[in-house]
Amino acid sequence: MQYTIHAKTHNKWDNSLPPIFSVNDGDVITVETKEASDGQITPTSTVKDLYNLDFDKIHPLTGPIEIKGAEPGDVIEVEFIEFKDKGWGWTSVLPGFGFLADEQYTAPIDLKGPALKIWDVKNSYAYAKFGDLKVKIPTYPFPGVIGVALPQRGKFSTIPPRENGGNMDIKHITQGSKLYLPVFVKGALLSIGDTHLAQGDGEVCGTAIEAPLEVTMKIRIIKNLGLTQPVFYTDKVKKMEFEEYLAYPGIDSNLWVAAKKAIKGIISMLAKYMTPVEAYMLASVAVNLRVSEVVDVPNWIVTAYLPLDIFEDESIKNELKDITRVVSL
Amino acid sequence: MQYTIHAKTHNKWDNSLPPIFSVNDGDVITVETKEASDGQITPTSTVKDLYNLDFDKIHPLTGPIEIKGAEPGDVIEVEFIEFKDKGWGWTSVLPGFGFLADEQYTAPIDLKGPALKIWDVKNSYAYAKFGDLKVKIPTYPFPGVIGVALPQRGKFSTIPPRENGGNMDIKHITQGSKLYLPVFVKGALLSIGDTHLAQGDGEVCGTAIEAPLEVTMKIRIIKNLGLTQPVFYTDKVKKMEFEEYLAYPGIDSNLWVAAKKAIKGIISMLAKYMTPVEAYMLASVAVNLRVSEVVDVPNWIVTAYLPLDIFEDESIKNELKDITRVVSL
Repeated sequence: MQYTIHAKTHNKWDNSLPPIFSVNDGDVITVETKEASDGQITPTSTVKDLYNLDFDKIHPLTGPIEIKGAEPGDVIEVEFIEFKDKGWGWTSVLPGFGFLADEQYTAPIDLKGPALKIWDVKNSYAYAKFGDLKVKIPTYPFPGVIGVALPQRGKFSTIPPRENGGNMDIKHITQGSKLYLPVFVKGALLSIGDTHLAQGDGEVCGTAIEAPLEVTMKIRIIKNLGLTQPVFYTDKVKKMEFEEYLAYPGIDSNLWVAAKKAIKGIISMLAKYMTPVEAYMLASVAVNLRVSEVVDVPNWIVTAYLPLDIFEDESIKNELKDITRVVSL
Repeated sequence: MQYTIHAKTHNKWDNSLPPIFSVNDGDVITVETKEASDGQITPTSTVKDLYNLDFDKIHPLTGPIEIKGAEPGDVIEVEFIEFKDKGWGWTSVLPGFGFLADEQYTAPIDLKGPALKIWDVKNSYAYAKFGDLKVKIPTYPFPGVIGVALPQRGKFSTIPPRENGGNMDIKHITQGSKLYLPVFVKGALLSIGDTHLAQGDGEVCGTAIEAPLEVTMKIRIIKNLGLTQPVFYTDKVKKMEFEEYLAYPGIDSNLWVAAKKAIKGIISMLAKYMTPVEAYMLASVAVNLRVSEVVDVPNWIVTAYLPLDIFEDESIKNELKDITRVVSL
């Protein structure tokens, strides 16, 4: 069967919540999701709206959806068939939140925010201006949060990802991918939300291109599989990569610090063209973070990859390829 | 001018070493490199040869090569034009070495080694068997180590990467890429070695597909740039990706542990088809490690991506896509 499920939401993991809908093994569902602010940010919002954000409303998840016949020990396969956007999305930096939160008050560059970018979305591209630069990012929508009910009773924050999936923010869980989630309670109780149009590996500023979506998925039950955490199949990694990158290796004896150095290197390279906080947002939606090596004792490398294809102006693309223009500020 | 530079090597960073060759701004050089064992491993080696390895010989670097006119504060641009292999390569696991070294004696799976895999290389593919599986990996050769002399006097290990580049093990520094290195001493004193034919992000078992090569590079001097560490341009990221992946998110409040969980997840999924130590080697040469998110307090995710394209047998590829076959051992 094929069903449409409207956005009746919750924002805590709680395995006692009654299902908003019940489906069977093999059903295809189209689920409406709200964006992460639950309507507090709209296409006409300005940065002023961030000052009044009610954080208790963050992460509205559509669900829980009961998968009839799913039992603890089974696995739910979620095959992502289609995503429909609503023509817009947003990205923000909030004080005290994000990968560089510790440095928002100490770094020589101003990363504090608050800052807000509204994206215009059409034909699978998101458009916005960063400084004077026109940026164009191909959209590959995915759920920031998708998970099943936890085995434990009680109400749990939706912020950390866990063995039930949840807030994984893995950008490759997109159309064509299949996500496998272990079932902990009868009926699995699937929820989905915090949908994104595009994101760099890391989601460093704490937000991606946040957007309400309609997500069409096929749900299957695999009986008795003994999977203990999420795994997924994807055929979109190559398609989602860009043609050209400028890359900054972060080198440190601590992997976390190495990743920070890499992101700060990219922000520094973009600082000629936009404010640091804009560069931080751009890194969050487009820069990839790869663990280059973890064996060359005692220094590890996380490399940040800035795609050059995202800049609409060819002359800027060429200028960024010329390191003398980028580094000599 | 165009020069060929034979493999006269050193294996410590030492800015007092006399140059083996001098080149000028704009010269193209073809440099012979030895593989990382300095001839101790050959195409006919077996695992027994690993017991007698002399670690003092590891990392023979061809160089130093003087770049005439390069001064401290300048930058050397190294443009990678061509790599030629010698038809073979090797991968090994050595006790006490690699990302999972701490677990070699404690993990429920046997990752100790020693283990050795010799690869047959032709037409830009490396071939070897893992268990009964035929594996075929496209080669994108790159230098594991490339760097200039350090500013400090003395002899320094070539193992850790540093501000001079060195043992970065970044696989995208391949043909078509341009690496920028800050110059710390007069003449820059460039060295290159530890060349690899293919590697996953992370180089988790401590070796890639190690191979002697001929590397053709164009060297340019950029005056007075004030770069403090390596950066690079690359157009090969998309080309080097595979079509299909099975991915395992490592979820943990420590990024290092998250990466370990991800790699162990992949080893576990491969354990039906090969020994754990073979799976560890395969992960080192083919599995990518991406930092999925670093903001969902307190759990971060590093995801390991196992490419399915590397398995020559279509039925194995299809079997790996069916999670029920992979997980139910």
